[in-house]
Amino acid sequence: MTQQSAIVLFAHGARDPDWAQPFQKIQGMVRDKMPGVVVELAFLELMQPTLDEAVANLAARGIKNIGVIPLFMAQGGHLKEDLPRKLAEIRRQHPTVSFRISPPIGEVHGILAAIAEWVCGEQDC
Amino acid sequence: MTQQSAIVLFAHGARDPDWAQPFQKIQGMVRDKMPGVVVELAFLELMQPTLDEAVANLAARGIKNIGVIPLFMAQGGHLKEDLPRKLAEIRRQHPTVSFRISPPIGEVHGILAAIAEWVCGEQDC
Repeated sequence: MTQQSAIVLFAHGARDPDWAQPFQKIQGMVRDKMPGVVVELAFLELMQPTLDEAVANLAARGIKNIGVIPLFMAQGGHLKEDLPRKLAEIRRQHPTVSFRISPPIGEVHGILAAIAEWVCGEQDC
Repeated sequence: MTQQSAIVLFAHGARDPDWAQPFQKIQGMVRDKMPGVVVELAFLELMQPTLDEAVANLAARGIKNIGVIPLFMAQGGHLKEDLPRKLAEIRRQHPTVSFRISPPIGEVHGILAAIAEWVCGEQDC
């Protein structure tokens, strides 16, 4: 990752402003780990910025590589249909920017294992 | 936890059946860690069983203590309004069953840290 690189943490969004807090915390943790990289949030619906707004802001700052991290528990219509459609349009608008899309967190063994470990601790097992 | 105890992993639900896979994986991991405890899934909408169906099945098996674990990234209307309303009705239907509700995973520091660590690894930082 270089200073021309950015990460966009992409979440669903909700009407309740408190809903964004976990994503803001993850953003803060990632920024601490990667001080040379721009780390932004973007939302599918109900919250700002949208993904196209976030990418437009980054492109205007000269960012050439953007990693999109879907912070969704699982892969359904939002990630299989909505995200590819939005990304196709965004790529057309920003042909000089390169994008890398990560799997949803529900496909990452280490994260599922951390969740299972926590469930076990919650239940005094 | 005793053999009269159960855990219900409570997720949103989606039209796409593949969506349930991460939750089924977590269910398998928790079952492996807690062989004496019944571990079931339940869904807010679009998938079965619903929370009241899952609780009714467990109560019919003589389960007296149920831990409900909301597998939601963040807390919005679903957890602040829908879940308490459903639980109030479920408690009325099953007055001899004791319930314990965990926070959503987005409020658990260790899980957010695992996600941040993975984001960092994804981006070669």
